[in-house]
Amino acid sequence: MFHRLSTNISRSLIRTMSTAIPVAAADAAVVPQAKAASATPSSDKKGGKKSKKQEQQFLLKTPKGTKDWSDKDMVIREGVFNSLTDLFKRHGGVTIDTPVFELREILTGKYGEDSKLIYNLEDQGGELTSLRYDLTVPFARFVASNSISSIKRFHIAKVYRRDQPAMTKGRMREFYQCDFDIAGNYDIMVPDSEILNILCEGLTGLGINDFKVKLNHRKILDGIFEACGVKEEDVRKVSSAVDKLDKAPWEAVKKEMVVEKGQPEEVADKIGEFVKVNGTIREVLEVLKASELLSTNKSAQQGIEEMGVLADYVDAFDINNFLRFDLSLARGLDYYTGLIYEAVTEASAPPANASELKEKAQKEKASKDGEVEDASEYVGVGSIAAGGRYDNLVGMFSNGKSIPCVGISFGIERLFSIIKARAAKGLENISPTQTEVYVMAFGGGEGWNGFLKERMTVTKKLWEAGINTEYLFKSKANIRKQFDAAEKSGAKIAVILGKEEYPAGKLRIKVLGQGEDSDEGELINTDDLLSYVNQKLESFNQDGLDEISRLVKGL
Amino acid sequence: MFHRLSTNISRSLIRTMSTAIPVAAADAAVVPQAKAASATPSSDKKGGKKSKKQEQQFLLKTPKGTKDWSDKDMVIREGVFNSLTDLFKRHGGVTIDTPVFELREILTGKYGEDSKLIYNLEDQGGELTSLRYDLTVPFARFVASNSISSIKRFHIAKVYRRDQPAMTKGRMREFYQCDFDIAGNYDIMVPDSEILNILCEGLTGLGINDFKVKLNHRKILDGIFEACGVKEEDVRKVSSAVDKLDKAPWEAVKKEMVVEKGQPEEVADKIGEFVKVNGTIREVLEVLKASELLSTNKSAQQGIEEMGVLADYVDAFDINNFLRFDLSLARGLDYYTGLIYEAVTEASAPPANASELKEKAQKEKASKDGEVEDASEYVGVGSIAAGGRYDNLVGMFSNGKSIPCVGISFGIERLFSIIKARAAKGLENISPTQTEVYVMAFGGGEGWNGFLKERMTVTKKLWEAGINTEYLFKSKANIRKQFDAAEKSGAKIAVILGKEEYPAGKLRIKVLGQGEDSDEGELINTDDLLSYVNQKLESFNQDGLDEISRLVKGL
Repeated sequence: MFHRLSTNISRSLIRTMSTAIPVAAADAAVVPQAKAASATPSSDKKGGKKSKKQEQQFLLKTPKGTKDWSDKDMVIREGVFNSLTDLFKRHGGVTIDTPVFELREILTGKYGEDSKLIYNLEDQGGELTSLRYDLTVPFARFVASNSISSIKRFHIAKVYRRDQPAMTKGRMREFYQCDFDIAGNYDIMVPDSEILNILCEGLTGLGINDFKVKLNHRKILDGIFEACGVKEEDVRKVSSAVDKLDKAPWEAVKKEMVVEKGQPEEVADKIGEFVKVNGTIREVLEVLKASELLSTNKSAQQGIEEMGVLADYVDAFDINNFLRFDLSLARGLDYYTGLIYEAVTEASAPPANASELKEKAQKEKASKDGEVEDASEYVGVGSIAAGGRYDNLVGMFSNGKSIPCVGISFGIERLFSIIKARAAKGLENISPTQTEVYVMAFGGGEGWNGFLKERMTVTKKLWEAGINTEYLFKSKANIRKQFDAAEKSGAKIAVILGKEEYPAGKLRIKVLGQGEDSDEGELINTDDLLSYVNQKLESFNQDGLDEISRLVKGL
Repeated sequence: MFHRLSTNISRSLIRTMSTAIPVAAADAAVVPQAKAASATPSSDKKGGKKSKKQEQQFLLKTPKGTKDWSDKDMVIREGVFNSLTDLFKRHGGVTIDTPVFELREILTGKYGEDSKLIYNLEDQGGELTSLRYDLTVPFARFVASNSISSIKRFHIAKVYRRDQPAMTKGRMREFYQCDFDIAGNYDIMVPDSEILNILCEGLTGLGINDFKVKLNHRKILDGIFEACGVKEEDVRKVSSAVDKLDKAPWEAVKKEMVVEKGQPEEVADKIGEFVKVNGTIREVLEVLKASELLSTNKSAQQGIEEMGVLADYVDAFDINNFLRFDLSLARGLDYYTGLIYEAVTEASAPPANASELKEKAQKEKASKDGEVEDASEYVGVGSIAAGGRYDNLVGMFSNGKSIPCVGISFGIERLFSIIKARAAKGLENISPTQTEVYVMAFGGGEGWNGFLKERMTVTKKLWEAGINTEYLFKSKANIRKQFDAAEKSGAKIAVILGKEEYPAGKLRIKVLGQGEDSDEGELINTDDLLSYVNQKLESFNQDGLDEISRLVKGL
């Protein structure tokens, strides 16, 4: 492994580039200092040959809210994926893959106020399409278009939202979701409780134990709104105001309800009494059952009954200590119809002095349009996993013939940021390569050609045996450089072709990384190479977990 | 695993849907019968609540040239990914991940005539971006922006091209590339020969042995063009004409050169003499060395020297029998500067009567704009892996300070179509789930409650031990339904809670899939569950390869 990363990647690196092609207008909010040569990109007139006369400003970065992943970060993220994939398979899941963009009308009307965050593809003739906003709507479209009656599916893939980024908090415009959903007609709350168990098992499997899963039920919430006097057509917008209670105090939410969303003050006050309630499922159920206002509300009573059933099942799964029934949880998306939930940790909440920090950032860092480029300083990580029941979404794609669904989505970037912060120390032992053997040649003097072809032949033999092997891409290489490269590669064994030894049918084997540079290693017959190396490698491979599994599990 | 797929997914399925939102204009080329309510989509006025009065046509499909992956296809594709990932790690590769879209100017001027196939994202305020067209340009941008001096990186991800699809031939608008690239300053042809070895090892590792790797060298090709009298500024467009020689006869290519690309006929004829030459590396080198026309051409001579070095190295790797030096290979992309190659099999070429089939399709199946929706009937699979050396691409992003690169890209969908056709029989034994145990309850009569909570408790115990376990999501389920579900899940063991046995601390274990329905299984103590099940599972897990590895390797 021969690469070197600059430790701090400047997000606004500007390069001067020789090219006749005018660059596109740089995003003023991102890099105010970029001088765009033209507001629109001219078409590419001729490919390869470029005039060296014109020097252009060239913006060398990834688009806003996106980033490159590499090196140890990549290894950790893959470890998280593997942990969740094992979890999903443990629960009988099968995986699918859907296109990264969907016909635009598939996404339309599914995301409420968040619809404005959808990325559209340009109309270049043909269909109108948009990048997927989540994996749930594409899943419902998949279930409908393949006439599936039941499935447990998982899907690990990227989704896209034109939101304000907070990169170090794992809030990005391109990010992974890891989803598990159960579609099919089953007894009430049975798949729901398995999904809650998967949520808890997924997080504890990643060494995250200090989380809470906030629960609520859309039928109870809708019943409360109805009973408090909210008109049917206002329910979703009042709900989206309530959803902000984790970030704003009740007074601000109440103001939004009354001023922006036109609710009478007494309606808001009645709602306020309910949304302050939280506790164990059975504690909150007691409050709800005692409420006279809800006693005649059909929707609320149905939700209350279902939550009673759930209480029994989560007992059987022994996950009650992670759960908190919280009547202020609303979830922004339109498509939920039953149980909803989101998992939060200490890192989820914004800093205590968030509004102060935000004001400061806006004063010091905002660009012309008044927006701060990155909100990391004054926001929290947010929920690390969330989901709910959506019984009508498939029906929107299949002429009303719906398939009930319930699911959970893990936010990988947010989990990653928690795991990486925790793992800072353990990172030293992680290698991004899995190289096992490094093949070298030692020699010198007259007639020494560096044994390049011989190294290739020996290396090929190791590859054919499935052994991860590298050698230096130089025809003649000195000993020090070969050992340096071997060390960087993380190889555990050096196979050495000596100028006299190799033609005599011998190879020298040296165990690396033991600091004994004086050790000359062992001389073996070339024919014994594979059996010898395999035996050595096995002896290193102690049973138990590898480094990356330990790190991801927080052990 | 409870899902059912309709065997034939209609690509033009139309649903009537209750919604107040007018759908977008359907792509006329795709589904001419779709009646669009409006030419442009109206904005989503209010999310959840929809008027049931208006019925709209709704197009239930994935965008043109894309598809859903699921079930056994997904398992095979993952098997191919795993085989290639192991290969890449065997050669010291590290993986990276870059955003699916890049700033538009990053992609501009890199793809020659193919630039028109790039997908742009809509300008929604902010930066102008496009979906990546390959993984090579983003890799070069990554190397430049992180100031990397050397890396062996692999990247398995989707790329996007607005090309005419041929779905059953694995030519799609959204498709995976599996790339391995080596960046860094090394001795001539050393990394190149390793890449060629990776190409051969990758294909044989997938059980594909009847392939040829066509080789050529851009410096030789450019030298030939120069020596034949092509002006410097015409080289790339003449090159792109030559590139069509695998699909069209020389006469058609000559016509393109002369009529469309304005070359004198005698220039075209001279080129024709060269591009007909192919054979082993050493055979073709002999022809080139004997050419008087090339003897004074610096570019050609340099390429000839490099190919001589390569000939030695591929001997060491023993891959000569796969290689064919073919002077007609040009590769369309602008960025190649040295060795170029592509692997083809019998399936790569179009059918012998391709032009006849194309004419027929155009007559019978073309839509208004004269284009056939899918070209599968008259095109071949094309190259299944391809790549080359590109020494200047990184420099285009880093102020001329370039890092030489060479790489290979495997076309997964094309490999998949070959492997799936070959594997038709073996597919029966492949299960998309990895469920090991199915937990059931047997009972009946008075007071029988179905033991749902008890099944949950036992299942949870198995999950905690890492055992893939399912149970039926019904509070009371009859025996037959539970066995049917267990069979569908692919579980190997049934754990049965009997009405009398379970309260007495006993569980019944039955091995599934052995057709002995009369077998009553074994009665064990509940405390022995984990050790008993683990032992049983181990006894099934014979050493050697699993079914999917066998299938992917073609064994």
